[in-house]
Formats: sequence, C-alpha cells, structure tokens
Amino acid sequence: MTENYNNSRKAIALHEKLRGKIIVASKIKRLKPSEIKLVYTPGVAAVCEEIYRHPEKKYTLTSKGNNVAIVTDGTRILGLGDIGPYAALPVMEGKAVLYQEFGGVSAFPICLGTTKKDEIIAAVKAIEPAFGAINLEDIESPKVLEISDALEKSLSIPVFHDDRHGTSVVVLSALINSLKLVKKQLPEIRVVVAGAGSAGYGICKLLVAAGCKNVLVTDSDGILYSGREENMNKYKNELASITNAKKEKGLLSDSLKNADVFIGVSGKKDLVNSKMIKSMGKDPIIFALTNPDPEIRPDLAKAAGAKIVATGSYLYHNKVNNALVFPHIMRAILDKKISKITPDLLLATARAIAKTVPDKRLDHENIIPDMYDKKIQKNIARAISRLSIK
Amino acid sequence: MTENYNNSRKAIALHEKLRGKIIVASKIKRLKPSEIKLVYTPGVAAVCEEIYRHPEKKYTLTSKGNNVAIVTDGTRILGLGDIGPYAALPVMEGKAVLYQEFGGVSAFPICLGTTKKDEIIAAVKAIEPAFGAINLEDIESPKVLEISDALEKSLSIPVFHDDRHGTSVVVLSALINSLKLVKKQLPEIRVVVAGAGSAGYGICKLLVAAGCKNVLVTDSDGILYSGREENMNKYKNELASITNAKKEKGLLSDSLKNADVFIGVSGKKDLVNSKMIKSMGKDPIIFALTNPDPEIRPDLAKAAGAKIVATGSYLYHNKVNNALVFPHIMRAILDKKISKITPDLLLATARAIAKTVPDKRLDHENIIPDMYDKKIQKNIARAISRLSIK
Repeated sequence: MTENYNNSRKAIALHEKLRGKIIVASKIKRLKPSEIKLVYTPGVAAVCEEIYRHPEKKYTLTSKGNNVAIVTDGTRILGLGDIGPYAALPVMEGKAVLYQEFGGVSAFPICLGTTKKDEIIAAVKAIEPAFGAINLEDIESPKVLEISDALEKSLSIPVFHDDRHGTSVVVLSALINSLKLVKKQLPEIRVVVAGAGSAGYGICKLLVAAGCKNVLVTDSDGILYSGREENMNKYKNELASITNAKKEKGLLSDSLKNADVFIGVSGKKDLVNSKMIKSMGKDPIIFALTNPDPEIRPDLAKAAGAKIVATGSYLYHNKVNNALVFPHIMRAILDKKISKITPDLLLATARAIAKTVPDKRLDHENIIPDMYDKKIQKNIARAISRLSIK
Repeated sequence: MTENYNNSRKAIALHEKLRGKIIVASKIKRLKPSEIKLVYTPGVAAVCEEIYRHPEKKYTLTSKGNNVAIVTDGTRILGLGDIGPYAALPVMEGKAVLYQEFGGVSAFPICLGTTKKDEIIAAVKAIEPAFGAINLEDIESPKVLEISDALEKSLSIPVFHDDRHGTSVVVLSALINSLKLVKKQLPEIRVVVAGAGSAGYGICKLLVAAGCKNVLVTDSDGILYSGREENMNKYKNELASITNAKKEKGLLSDSLKNADVFIGVSGKKDLVNSKMIKSMGKDPIIFALTNPDPEIRPDLAKAAGAKIVATGSYLYHNKVNNALVFPHIMRAILDKKISKITPDLLLATARAIAKTVPDKRLDHENIIPDMYDKKIQKNIARAISRLSIK
C-alpha cells in the first residue's frame, strides 16, 4: 500500500530529525539566579519538610499528581508482537506526546528490561511514589491482566490499562453512535469480537456491562464457550462465562453469520474476507481495529456490503483509536483523584464521548468525535464528576 | 536565621503556585492532525521496526539518549535524613529543572517505594531501557555505594552518583582555585574531610587521584585510620587505606590542628567552631558544604580567621554545589556516549571547571564560576572529548 509506505518513510524521517519526541521541561522558563535558591537548595528543604509533616501535600507541592508512567515490557507492541523495550519506545513516546497535547498530562515511558510477571509487578510498585497513575501498555496477554489485577490490589494510585480500558471505551462510544445510524439497539444485536487478549477482554466486559446480551468472542481456536478446553486461561474462562449463552461452537466465519457487528482486535491482518461480511445480518458494522494493518481494508469491507466501517488507523475515516480516550479520561482521573478504574467510570466515559457528536452531524463516516474537539474533555470531566458525587 | 526563614516561606509559596516544577513536554508544539499518523499509529510502527532491525538506532530515533533517571529512596535527602520518597520529590524535581536549564538534559524523578538494596538494584535494572544514564541521588551510605557498584557491573548505561561524583568534582575545582589564591600546592597541603558517606568517599578518592598526599577523613567516631574497628565498613576501610598514612587518631578537632583545608560533608549543622578554625594552619580554607545548614556559618568562620569560605548554599558567595557539575558533565557523558564514570573523567571535569574562572578574576569570594557561565559547558565538553580520543 503506497500511502502506508510513504507515511512510514515520513515517520522515520521525522523521528530522525527530532531524535526523540519528548523532553522533561521545567515549568519555570529561563530560571533566574534568584529562583535557584527556591527550586533547589536551600529553599527546597522547607518544601520537603512540609511534605514530610503533611504527606497529603505531595499532591499540591510536586508534579506527582500529574505524572503518569507508561509501562511496557515490549512484548506486544501494536500489531508487531514482541519487539522488546527499545523498539517499543517510539510508541510510548507517541503516547506521551498525545497525553500532553490533548490532556495536559505528563507521561513518561517506563520500558522494562524484563518480561517476567513478578519482576514487572515489583518494578511498578517500586516506582509508584513519583506518579499519580500507571498506564499499562502493550504487554502480552494474559500476563498483563494478572499484572493489572496484582497492581490494583497493592497500589494506592489508579492502574489504567489502555489496551483494555481505553479500547473498550472508544469501541463502545463508536458502537453507540453506529447503532443510532442503523437504528438498532444494544440489547438486540449480535456482536462478534475477534481477539481474546487485553482488548477483547475489556471490550466484552464493557459491552456486557452496557447491556449487550449476544456477544461472541473468538480467538485462533474459534469461538469461546463455557467448557472449551483448548487454549484457555482464567480470563478467557471469564469471557466464556459472560458471553455466548447458547454455547455456540465453530470458527470466526461461523460466528459472523447473521451478526450485526464485527469488532476486530485480533492483531491479524486480513483476518476477515468479503464472504464473511456478506454472511452477516442487515447493515453490518465493521470495526477492524488492529494496527497498523486492519483485519480487512475499509474499501474491501464496504464493497462487501458493510454499512459502517472503522479502523484504528489515522489513514482512514472513523478512527476508533484509544487516543480519543486516554488523554481525556486520565485528565479526569487525575483531577478527581479516582483511585480505581470501574465499569461505571468506563460506561460514563463512553457515553460522554458518543454524545460529543451531535445527532445532526452523525454520519456513516463520522461516528466518533474528532480528537481536536474540545467538548470531549468537558463532557468526560462532567460525566466523571457526576459519578464521583454519586 | 531570618534570611533562611524568608527564603523557606518563598520556596513553599512558589511550589504551591506551580504544583510541581516539571512537565513531560512534546518536542512538537501544537501537534497537527497530519502529524498524528507519524508520531503515533500507523507511522510509528515503521520506526519501531527500524529499531528492532537496527538496535543502535534507539539512540537516534528516540529520547533515550537524553533521558536520565534521578533515582532515590528518600533515605538521605539533603541534610534532612530519611524523609521518604514523597518528601524527596521536590529535590529531585529541582535537579530535573537544573538538568534541563543548564544541560538540556531530560531528567525524571524515580522516587522508590523501597529502601531495600536488592529491590533498588532490581528496579533500576528494570527501568534501564528508556534512559541514557542513571543519576543516583540522596540514598544513604554505604548502601548507595554497594548499589552503585552493582549497577555499574550490570548496566550498559553510565551510573552517575551525584553525591559522590558531582560533589567530588566541584570540591576539587574550588580547591584548585583556592590554592592559587593562598599560594599552596595540592601535594603539600593537609586536608580534613568531615564525613565518610558518599560525598566524603568521593572527595577523598578524587583528592588522592589528584595528588593530595595528606588527607584525613573523620566521621562521628573521629579520624579514620587503618585498623580502626568501631563503625567501619568496606568503603571506610578503603578510605582509611588511601588516607592518613601516619595512622593519626583522635577527634575532628585533633585532625584540624595545622590543617590547610576543611571540607565538611558531614550532614551536621554547627559541627565546627571558631576554636577549631583558629587551630588550623595559615590562611585556612573552609568548605562547609552541608545543606541546608553548613558545618559553620560563613561569618563565624571568617571571624575566626578563615581565608576562604565556601558553602553549598545559594544564600552565600562561593557556592560549591554539585549543581555546577551535574548538568554539564551529564551533557558531555550523553553526547560522548561515555559508559563509565572514571577518575580521569572526574579530574578532567574538575580542572575544566576550575579554569573557567580566569586567574585575573579569581578572588576569595569568587573561587568557582557562576552557574550561568556558558564557558563551563564548553570547557567540560572539550576536556571530555580529549579524554575520549585518548
């Protein structure tokens, strides 16, 4: 694909020019000699003592409350797989750029030189004090879900798992608006989620929490069902138990027959073909979200009859990418001192993003708001404020 | 001290206003929609693959080569002692501010929630990939020396220990220039170093490497000597073996008799009194470097006959503070890809800083360059370049 190739070349050239996309900057520009004795010794000692005496002041006298650690071990970077912590850096810096640009959040890449679960947990626990939240990123599943569970129990700051939480929110937002266009209701549709990793896990859990009653999940062994024995784990068992009430068995192609919605978070390019789309129900909705190469190219999906097509890529319309979520939800989480990511929080955020596109502007190629829409942040903040009050 | 009290109040007020001194900023200001697909998905995937194929490109395509982790466990913050990782944050952020302002270095606070040696080592090893260097900071001694030794062996990036390396460099710089003023030579003077922690260890090692033949170190049990049994450790034994050739015994007051130079890095306010200074040799040089409160106040030291007085504080003349060193030496270390901090590197840096003050401008109240002197960076870079060539 020439467009993709050209974009790749431009991306490498830009990175070579910048030599990295982020810096740690001082809030005081052109520090004056008279300010050194305030920001550094001896004045800073009084600030340290103030926090020592009143620990809650760590949030008002330091940057902690606005710092986020983007933690990865490089084992599942985008759709590229296990490329290690160094090759992971450009993605983590890219997230940091978006965190600051759209959320005013200071995010720093913590790319770990270990892939062992217990060592990752220990490292994140060790670095907690300087951060206001953790963002787990692109760590292979199900390990990352175990890490996330363990950290949630032991840390006092929130553990946001973008592949799970962020993706689930943007998918639900896009789905809420797509259903308006095809005039269907969440409780009545049949949804197929391809991929039972972090994203699939998060999406299924949130769809069920939102009221979807007919969800099927597939992995490389086909449809998940209660009692399946091959290639299962704790989290897939949980998914099997909350989805597929009729215990359907079969391949992805079987699951798609008469389905209303396909959501691809499989990591597999070209997983879906035209025939599968043609087997779906009326006005099929296709979210082919694997990056950088989707499960099916939008032009092929449309040619096969898809009514609404979205990808996770910035090369196409309908960018269902968690970048629409993480800077804004994190801003609200930090501001409201939310300590735990709950289904209610995610549902409220998804609805707030969906309603940012006014009904009169909703369109098959405009199902979610533009990243630059200032109302996203306002709507999310308001929705999360209401939750906190409750 | 009213001046100190007022400064403290101003420092707290400034920190309250800023709510933290640092942010993680994007190098691209006002990110355009067309740039998102380059810094983030899908374009960024090509950058990841490029690093995966050519690992050395992690230094040209990411920020790694300019990122420094300021690592502390909060056990020995300034002269305040063990105040924990949260109360340590203002100092670490202050360092990050100076790193960026004077060295263009991106430094991020890694304040650890553990004080256990092995856990600290494991955490630093885990976070290595995103950083170009480690700066160990304000960790209690001798634990920090063991940590530093262990990390030097296992990391591929340099481990700069500011309390040891940075302090030793600025002290030697100031001493070189002070000796010019009192017309004495390094090999002939008697130097007393009060404090056998990280700073004392670093200073003694560098003084000996620079050619000092008569160095005495004291701790709370008095002068260190080979064979002393009380309150020793591996590093104090090493100091005892390279200093105090005559195996002198006694208290600090004994060591100061006829001494030419006192260097205080004891962490103890008012450790030195007028009588001790009066017992020293001709034209005594007093570096009372403990922060925030020095071993003796400059006015008292001068009144007792000190010829040259320096402190580590920005409230007085002759600011012998490692802030004069760390931003500049780190800039050169990162630029030249220095992998290990050696005595040669430190000696070259100390001499480069010393010569930044031209002889005609040398004065009892002007023994070291001003932090804002642009020539410091140039002189250090040139000196370190020459070393690399050798």
